[in-house]
This record gives sequence, C-alpha cells and structure tokens, in this order.
Amino acid sequence: MSSAPLHETGRRSFASDNYSGVHPEVLEAVAGANGGHQTSYGEDAYTGRLQEVMAGHFGPGTVAYPVFNGTGANVTSLMSLLPRWGAVVCAATAHINVDENGAPERVGGMKLLAVPTGDGKLTPELIDREAWGWGDEHRAQPLAVSITQSTELGTLYTVDQVRAIADHVHGLGMKLHMDGARLSNAAAALGVPLRGFTRDAGVDVLSLGGTKNGLMFGVAVVVFDPQAAAELKYLRKMNMQLASKMRFISAQLVALYEGDLWLRSASHANAMAARLRAAVEGTRGITLTQPTEANAVFAALPPGTADRLREKFRFYDWDAARGEVRWMCSFDTTEEDVDSFAEAIREELAGSLR
Amino acid sequence: MSSAPLHETGRRSFASDNYSGVHPEVLEAVAGANGGHQTSYGEDAYTGRLQEVMAGHFGPGTVAYPVFNGTGANVTSLMSLLPRWGAVVCAATAHINVDENGAPERVGGMKLLAVPTGDGKLTPELIDREAWGWGDEHRAQPLAVSITQSTELGTLYTVDQVRAIADHVHGLGMKLHMDGARLSNAAAALGVPLRGFTRDAGVDVLSLGGTKNGLMFGVAVVVFDPQAAAELKYLRKMNMQLASKMRFISAQLVALYEGDLWLRSASHANAMAARLRAAVEGTRGITLTQPTEANAVFAALPPGTADRLREKFRFYDWDAARGEVRWMCSFDTTEEDVDSFAEAIREELAGSLR
Amino acid sequence: MSSAPLHETGRRSFASDNYSGVHPEVLEAVAGANGGHQTSYGEDAYTGRLQEVMAGHFGPGTVAYPVFNGTGANVTSLMSLLPRWGAVVCAATAHINVDENGAPERVGGMKLLAVPTGDGKLTPELIDREAWGWGDEHRAQPLAVSITQSTELGTLYTVDQVRAIADHVHGLGMKLHMDGARLSNAAAALGVPLRGFTRDAGVDVLSLGGTKNGLMFGVAVVVFDPQAAAELKYLRKMNMQLASKMRFISAQLVALYEGDLWLRSASHANAMAARLRAAVEGTRGITLTQPTEANAVFAALPPGTADRLREKFRFYDWDAARGEVRWMCSFDTTEEDVDSFAEAIREELAGSLR
Amino acid sequence: MSSAPLHETGRRSFASDNYSGVHPEVLEAVAGANGGHQTSYGEDAYTGRLQEVMAGHFGPGTVAYPVFNGTGANVTSLMSLLPRWGAVVCAATAHINVDENGAPERVGGMKLLAVPTGDGKLTPELIDREAWGWGDEHRAQPLAVSITQSTELGTLYTVDQVRAIADHVHGLGMKLHMDGARLSNAAAALGVPLRGFTRDAGVDVLSLGGTKNGLMFGVAVVVFDPQAAAELKYLRKMNMQLASKMRFISAQLVALYEGDLWLRSASHANAMAARLRAAVEGTRGITLTQPTEANAVFAALPPGTADRLREKFRFYDWDAARGEVRWMCSFDTTEEDVDSFAEAIREELAGSLR
Repeated sequence: MSSAPLHETGRRSFASDNYSGVHPEVLEAVAGANGGHQTSYGEDAYTGRLQEVMAGHFGPGTVAYPVFNGTGANVTSLMSLLPRWGAVVCAATAHINVDENGAPERVGGMKLLAVPTGDGKLTPELIDREAWGWGDEHRAQPLAVSITQSTELGTLYTVDQVRAIADHVHGLGMKLHMDGARLSNAAAALGVPLRGFTRDAGVDVLSLGGTKNGLMFGVAVVVFDPQAAAELKYLRKMNMQLASKMRFISAQLVALYEGDLWLRSASHANAMAARLRAAVEGTRGITLTQPTEANAVFAALPPGTADRLREKFRFYDWDAARGEVRWMCSFDTTEEDVDSFAEAIREELAGSLR
Repeated sequence: MSSAPLHETGRRSFASDNYSGVHPEVLEAVAGANGGHQTSYGEDAYTGRLQEVMAGHFGPGTVAYPVFNGTGANVTSLMSLLPRWGAVVCAATAHINVDENGAPERVGGMKLLAVPTGDGKLTPELIDREAWGWGDEHRAQPLAVSITQSTELGTLYTVDQVRAIADHVHGLGMKLHMDGARLSNAAAALGVPLRGFTRDAGVDVLSLGGTKNGLMFGVAVVVFDPQAAAELKYLRKMNMQLASKMRFISAQLVALYEGDLWLRSASHANAMAARLRAAVEGTRGITLTQPTEANAVFAALPPGTADRLREKFRFYDWDAARGEVRWMCSFDTTEEDVDSFAEAIREELAGSLR
Repeated sequence: MSSAPLHETGRRSFASDNYSGVHPEVLEAVAGANGGHQTSYGEDAYTGRLQEVMAGHFGPGTVAYPVFNGTGANVTSLMSLLPRWGAVVCAATAHINVDENGAPERVGGMKLLAVPTGDGKLTPELIDREAWGWGDEHRAQPLAVSITQSTELGTLYTVDQVRAIADHVHGLGMKLHMDGARLSNAAAALGVPLRGFTRDAGVDVLSLGGTKNGLMFGVAVVVFDPQAAAELKYLRKMNMQLASKMRFISAQLVALYEGDLWLRSASHANAMAARLRAAVEGTRGITLTQPTEANAVFAALPPGTADRLREKFRFYDWDAARGEVRWMCSFDTTEEDVDSFAEAIREELAGSLR
Repeated sequence: MSSAPLHETGRRSFASDNYSGVHPEVLEAVAGANGGHQTSYGEDAYTGRLQEVMAGHFGPGTVAYPVFNGTGANVTSLMSLLPRWGAVVCAATAHINVDENGAPERVGGMKLLAVPTGDGKLTPELIDREAWGWGDEHRAQPLAVSITQSTELGTLYTVDQVRAIADHVHGLGMKLHMDGARLSNAAAALGVPLRGFTRDAGVDVLSLGGTKNGLMFGVAVVVFDPQAAAELKYLRKMNMQLASKMRFISAQLVALYEGDLWLRSASHANAMAARLRAAVEGTRGITLTQPTEANAVFAALPPGTADRLREKFRFYDWDAARGEVRWMCSFDTTEEDVDSFAEAIREELAGSLR
C-alpha cells in the first residue's frame, strides 16, 4: 500500500505540542522492537528495560506502568491514591478538571475540588481552601492533591515549591500526584534531574509524559511504593489502558528516557518558546500574560489580530473574551518557524494599531 | 540511542496473535504519516482518509472512531447502544465477560448476561435465555447482544447465522454489537466482504480489530447510524480512548484496510492454523476440541504433554482441568514454524503414550 | 417491647430542620396506611393517590417518584436530564456539591461545574461562567443547571428569577433542575402556589422535599415530561432508591401535600426564623450575614460566643473562620424556643462585649 | 388530614412478605421515638441503643449501619469487602444478581460471577467454579462470596454449611457476605441464635433485614471488624443510603431485635408456610419444587391453574415456562388465610384435572 504522506510534512504550527509527530530516534526504536514474538501485556524485554531506565532516573523501587495516554495515566494514578470516597484538590485550570470530559469523576469515581489560581499553580494556602472536613462523611474526603509540572499555563513549580506542597500535603495525611505531561520541559527549565523535583521532593505518584515530547503515544504511571504498584496493574487493566503489544510503548519510552533525548527535545522546545517571547516582547499591542518558563507563550492581542494571524499559522485561543492566545513550541519547532511567526505577529500588530 | 533489539526477532510462538509485532507495510505507513504537524484528536488527514476507506468497505454513512484497544472499543460500542439501565447478552466465553476485568461493568456501568455455549456462539434460542423482563425495573434491561466474530474459540458465525441473530435481536427491540477483534480472519474464512456479515447482516455497531492482525495498536468503533456517531465522540473521550496523535492509529488502519493487507494477513494466519490442524489431526493422544474455522486450534492433550511442549514453544492452557490448550497463528507465522511445532507435538504425543 | 422514648421529647434545637421528628398528622397517616397487604414497589393505593395530589399541585402530566432521601432524589433527577457525558452547573454552596460525598459524581457519573455566589443563588450571568464548550468532547458537556429553592443560605429565588434562569437555560439547550428540599418554605415565603415557581416558571425536574418539613423520610422526584417519567423508574431502582413498602412514603407525602399541612408547617418555620431574626437584629456584636427569607438565620458572632451558646442550644457553625453560624427553624419550633434562644443570644453578646 | 385507609386493611395475599405492612409493636416504637429534636444522621439515642442490641446478638465489636433497603445494604456491604477490581461469586438466583437492576455493577462497580444452583445454595465446589484467577489482571478478581440466608428459593443453609463455605472462602483469601433479608426466618427455622450461623460461622459482613419481617423500611449493614466499620460510614453516604432522621430506622430495628419480636414474627411466617405446604402436599396435580424450610412454598401447577387462582389470591409466577409459582407467608398471614388459600388451591386442582 502507498505510504505517501497525505499531509505537508514540512508544515508546523504553534497550536499544540501534540500536533507534532514522532521523533526520528523514537521511530527507529519502534522499528527496532519489531519482529519476532514477545509476550503481550507487559512481559516483554522492552518493558523490562523500561523498569531499569526508570530506576536509573528515580531510584530503586520505582515501577513504571505504561498506559496509552495522559488522561488514562492521571485517572489511574489518582485512583491508586484514593479510597472510593476520595476527592482531589487541583488547580481550576488543571487538565484533569477541564480537558478530560469528567473521566476522573466518571471512570475514577472521584470528586475534584478545583481551586482558582492566577498562574496554574497551587500553594499550601490554596490547597487549604479545599483541604478540610476529614471524618465528615457528607464531604468527599480530600485525600490527594494533583499538581501539573510544567503547568497548563506554561509556568513552573520550583523544587522548593513542590517540596513545600508535598510536606504540607503529607502533613495533612494526603498524597501528592504530579501530572507530568510536560515533565521533561520542567526538568530542562529547572536544570534539575527528573528525580529532584518529583520523588525526592515528595511526589507519591507521577504521570510521566511522552506524547508531548516526541512519542507516537504512551505515558507511564510511575510509582515508588511497591504496595501501590501491586494494585496498579488491576487499575490499569480495568481502566482499559493495558496495551497488548506493550513493547511498542515501552520501546518508545526507553528511547526517550534512556539517554538524553527527553532533555534535548524539551530544552529545544523551551528555547524556541523563549525565542518567540523575546522576539515579540515589548511590541506595541501585545501583552504577555504569563511568564514563559517552559514551552508555552501566553499573550493577549488586540481584537481581530489572532484570527488574521491564524490565516497563516495555527494556534488556539486560550481565553477568547480577553483576547488571550496560547503558542506552544515543540521538539520539532525550528528557529525559522519561530522567526517567521514572530515576524508575522509583529506585522499584524503594527497593522492592527495603525 | 541504541535501537538494537532486546529480543530474538526471529523467534515466534503459538501463544497469541498479539505476541506478534507490526506488519512491515504498517510500519512503513506509520513512518509515512510522520513529520510536520497535524491537528490532534482526529482532525488529521489520515483519520479523514480512514473514513473513506471504511465507507468503501461498509458503505455510505459509515463513521469509524479509532481507539486504543479492544476493551476500549467494546465498552465504548456497547455504551453507545444502551441506556444507563441496560444489560448485554453475551456468550459466557466472550472477551467482554472473561478478559476485561469487569471494564464493561465498572467503566460502562452495564450488566452482562452471560450464556454458556459449547462453541462460543450465541443463537436466537440461547439469547432468549436472558432476553426477557423488559419493563420490569428490577431487572437490568437486556437491550443489546454482543457476538464475537471469529469467536474466542476459533469458531465462525456464517452470514445466515449473523442475520438470524440480528433479525431476532431487532425483533425484540434490542441492538447487535459485534466484537471483531479477528474480523479479518472471519472474512477470510467466509470468503465474504467485510460488509457482508456485519452491516448487511444487521450488525449495529462493530469493534473493528487491527492489533491481532499486524497493527502496533489500534481498533476502530465502526457505526452506521449518524445519530450514534454523534454521541460516540463524547463516549470515546470520557472512556480515555481518545488519542492525541490520532494520525498514527488511523494511518495503521488505513494501511491495513485500504488495500488487501487485512485479507492477505488473515488468510495466511488461517492457513497456518489449518496446516497445523492437518499436521496433528488423527495423531494418537490428541483430541481437537473445536473446529478450526479461523486462526486458532484447540486441542486436548494427555497430562504433562503441554508443559513439556512449552519448553520449546509458548502457548496457553485453555482449560487446564481438561488438558485443553489453545494454539494461535498469526500473520507472521511461517510454514516452518508450523511444521516444526507439529513435529514436536507428534513426538511428544508419541513419547507420552509409549 | 418498650417504646418508652430514649430521648427528651420536649427538647428542641436550632441545628437543623432534620433534627425534628414527624408531624403528628403524618404519623397518623402512616398508621392509617398500615394493615392488610398492598402491592410493593409503588403499585399501591397511596402511591396512586399521590399522583392525584401532585397533579393537583403541578397540573396534568405530572408524575411523582417517591425516593428515600434528598441525595437520592437529586442524583436521580439529574441523571434523567443528562447523557453520560453531561455536566451540571450549580452554586458552589449547593447541597449536591458540598454535602453528598460526591454521590452525583460517583453514582451519577456527572461532573459538577460549581460557581461561587454571594447568596447561594445562580443568575444567568453566573451560569454563563460555566455554560460553554458544547460540541467539544474534551469538556464535560454542561447540559443541566441545578438551583436550590429555598437555598442552602436561606435565600429565595423570586418567580421572575426562576423564570429568567429557566429561559436562559432552555435557550442554551440545557435543562433546569430544582432541589426543593425546602420547597414548601419557599412557597410560603413567596406566597405563590408550588406550581408557580416550578413547572410554570420552567423547571424541568423537581426534587420535592418532605423530610425537612415534618416527614419521617421521603422525597419525590417530580417530572412533567412523560418521556422522562418512562426512564425514571429504572434510574430510581438502579440508584437503590426504590422502596418495597412504598405506601409508607406515599402516605406521608399525601398527608403533607393533600391539604395545607405543607403550607402551615413551612409558614410556621419561616415565622419562627423571622421572629428570631427580629429578636436579635441590631443587638451589638451580631451581624446578620444573609437575608432571612425562609426558615434560616445566618449570623456572625464574636469569637467564643457560639461555643458558649451551644452549651445550652445546639446549632452549627457555617463558616467557623468568619464566626458565622446557622440557625434553623422547624415545623415544631415554638415561640418559647425562639424567645429563650434569642434571650440567651442577647445575654451572651452582652457578656462577650463587656 | 384524612388518614382513612385507601385500601382493604383486612386483605392479604401470598405474593410477597413485603406486601405486608408494619407490625403494631414497630409502629408503636416509631411513635415513641417521635417528638423533640435528635441529632440527625445517626448521632441519636435510638441508633446508640441499636448498637447495644446488635452487640447483644452478635457480640462485642459489632457495629450496625442502618440503611434504607436491601439493595443498599447489599451493595454497600460488598463494596466494603472489595477493592475496585473485585468480583463476587454468588448463586445465579441471588437477589443481587437478578433483582437489583445491576446496582452492584453500576453503583458498586463490581462484577458478579453467578453460578447456577438447583436450590439457590452455593457450596465450596460451586464456588470453585468461579473462584480462580487471582493475580491475573484480565480477570475481575473474585475476592468475595455472597450467600443468601434463607435463600431466594426458600431453602436454608445449615450452620455447618455456612461454616464450610466460610472456611473455604477464607482459605482462598476471600471474604463472606450474607444477604440476610430473611435472616430471622432462617434463625427461627434453624433454632439457632442469630450469631450462630453468621459471625460465629465465619460471615464477615451481614445485610440484616427488617422490612420483610414487619418493619416499615430499614435494613442494617452489620460488621464485626472495626476497620471495615471505619470505612462503611463513607460508603453508606456516597451510596445515598444515609437517613437524616435515622432515629426512625433505628427505633424500628430496636423494636424488632431488642426482644423476641423478630423470632415471634419469623416463626409465625415459617409456620404458616409449613401449614400451607402440608395442606396441599400430595394433592393430585401439584408438585412442590423446593423444600419449605423458611416462609416460602414453591410449587408447579397445571397450565392455567395459577391464573385462575390469582383471581382470588395474589401471588407471583416464579418460572412461568415450567408452571412454577411462589407463595410467601408473612408475619401477618393468618391460619384462616392459609386454610382458605389451600382450599382454593385444592379446588382449582381438582377442577383442572377433572
């Protein structure tokens, strides 16, 4: 059959880091894992190797459970931390709260206690707005907190901020989940090993992303507590997240995390976002609405500007009422992509203010 | 990074058709879909092309919803056919009943009404054992039937048998789902177009498999009713089965179903099962416990035989108490694999009866 | 057996209208429905009579489904308005959001989109904060709004306010649920028939309370759309809210709503709250934090005052951080109860400010 | 308000023990618990007294959780015994399997593994048909067994039979639930204290019935393990089974179980069933299809007989295809009721065979 591409393979956008494809090294790893037979459902050599790679990053006792996607990872992770009557404190902008069509509630049977934030980041004080009422059966029991690193607003928790949250959360008898769909971008920005702001900072369960950093598909639920691990295999299966040919998720995750591909790709995406920000910052008419700490730029534009720009470059509105847009950079965003986009932005702004 | 294989790429088994890897033409299609940016979550060119391919097979009005795996496809399909108080009549051996850790019940909120069968196949009479009690709110309302084609026991429904079930089911005001994890094997065996024993025979919603026939991952929920289609997109998302980089599922499904790869691969797997059966049938000590109508051979062996055979070839017990085993053939099973396995079986049987 | 009371039957509090017992006329009705056999699960004469009583209040086509409690009524009502992917816009203070341990999410599989309010009341503008995103499968689809009348803060929607919400909600293609745990108190305060601010104002499904107005137990889901009614019987059963000896719920509801007992009792409770408010309003040290429109008084007290008062009279903190308390009046609250409580409040305030 | 009965209070049937009303002593207890205020949701004197009564029956450490109905009790009980991936082995005829509209699956998220039986009773051997597959995440994990005492077929487990099941179940690492909707009838028939065939025989959690033995409504989940008890309060609430005015359930349960009312009523119902059986046994044309060990008689009648009998006496078909009917006796069934019904049966049989 023809495998001629149906799309323009040289065309990129600033819409989402999941508009990008597969990093060539990852695709090579997939091909390398092909051929012959391997036990399905995780008893294969690549999933075995993944455990070693993850232990290398996160230390002994780490177990990684490959799943299909981020929603699957988040819901499965959170279920492993909660009894049936549990609730999760999260930022109002958290992916679990706004982008998963209620899967945490519907599939996971949990209640989300969402807290408004300015920058997508929880703090001990913000957590306390919903962390109360233990022992009162009328209240869904707040027994876990979920934070996203880097956040949905492109901001970062410092190591100290994660640790302060973890200490606070554990002091309340709660558990801490980190949605790391963009964990590599955070690590690259912080200049800290993956372990430094996760396990070592007190995170109990981690959704370790890959798809937004050059995988075809695949996320891992990463746990550090063997007891939790014993239960995760059942949760993963009943949540319909158990891949039969798991070697092909694991091989991708190995390719990403075995060497420094995760870091190279994420550093590049971050650098492209910084380049974009630098190129437009200060231009009359634009307001940068969030710090650019990872691979996203948030900006407010004059009315009409975004729609005209979109005739050439795809990206999403974030808050249409405020004219706020989101520009995402990816592992494959080039300097030329950024420069031509920035040029277009400046031109459009100049035109709109004329 | 190294992409040297961690496993013996020339070694195959008879354990499961999901022990196999990815057909080279499928892998080529994945590579061909790579590069550049494509809108995520299904608004890409490959998912668009998939709709044309599916309409080619199943006729106008067909819509295909790519999902990650068979359990996801089955649960999502069945939810689309049922109100919250619905129940599904199925064979006791159905994958949904025995191999999905209760996902239909837990995620789908449905009750399964399982009927024992000899050969994995329902009939109108068997369906009637559980198809009753409409209007009585104490009884989970039997509003759908699920059949597997080819079945978990390697048997086949004829076109007439599917039609008889569909007519019966529709006459009762119920809907018909087909779990087509091995639909291609069934089509190859029946010598009938995919449409002939699905839509044209009265199937309402179809789980169209791929992973067991040479895909890396990916199944499609295929619907023929535009109203059902309108709801499926929400069910897929809330069931955590919506892939961000969907182009890579769709490109695989296109590669499989656009030309005749589905048929070539399935015919080959079926032929290998027939060859295996022929090579051992009549050997003293073996009882073939099911007809070999697709790509599976079920056999009963003398005590101890299976375990000794497994020292060289992997396969699963089906019913250990009865000494029954299952041997699956795959798109990549070779004649040499079959012949050497058959030889080993015959030798072992000769030894065990000496 | 002894039926000597284990408690002081003359002692009342201001803690909750569900601390009260059963109105004597209701208890008499229960006794009157006893004896002989009646078909269980709702095919009895009392449930039949209830339909007539409800049609008398709400007009032709009304069907009432007795259930056990308010949570059961709310969850069942909302499920009848939503597909599986639905979400409900409600006030952050709504009982469904804060007092039902996530039953709407866990049992009903719905997502709540809670909006902060000052007085427990939604408005079209407040609803619009969460009523958006239809057609986007990533967002739980906001397809129903739930308002509480009278609210958890003791405030009231006027007829016009309900109608404005209903019109707005319907204009958006959504449905309107009213949690009427204290519907009688609202009707008494508004001086409007029950129908006037429910069905006639555009409410689609109603949780019609009873327990907080002198029933032993029992709430009714009241629907005006025969199609919804056809489905409710299944939802009620699967939600474990179908009483076998339903005659004893229905007889209570008939006793309450057949004549004017609902109105007499609610008017009295409201009057007692007004009397309490009047007796303490203006006293130095007390701030009345909500209007007293039904049977609740909300007040902020100086530190320590509430705890000292509670040595003699039970009531709950509402917002301990702000020193805010809630005082509820009931059908059996007497003028003497109010006067002695008000006296104690004034004394305590005088002491605390000395 | 009128409390004149809407039904014939002297008319009884053989349809179900929940067609009966409230025992006068229970109604008296309800009235005695009325008046004054009592803390809602279980912190009342009657729920306190209930704990003492239950500890008297079942020994120290017993905690009873009043709920609304049997389905609520069963689902809540079983959830307390299972992780989210659990399954329950039960008889195919179990109430949880056939009469609860899938509430165990839909609300409880559990899978039922139903085993056909001749007499509604499980045995260790029958349990073994489904008790396997631990550690395999594809299989819903069988971690609890539920038995009904007396069964839905009017049969009884002996003390030794319960103990043998409990020992077997515990030996497999599973837990044992007993659905005791008719536990009193079983105790009366066995001549054994309630504890003798429950806690002392190895039952882990008990649904202790009341409604079928003269209560208006109310069942208790009874646990003997304080850890389980700590969790039950949350399960009861999230399952919408927490009564606000709980004193009125507890007072009924106290009235039933404090003295010997439970035993008197159940013994009487059993005696009436025995009297009915004796009166018709041996009559030409009738086949008694189950032993009459508690308060039910199962019989097969010639075609048409049941329908003609039903013109005067209400009762249900059990298996219409086989002409099998069920006749239930209740605490209020009189000797005259039985004798006139038996007379009618004999006359009808004589007529139908003429």
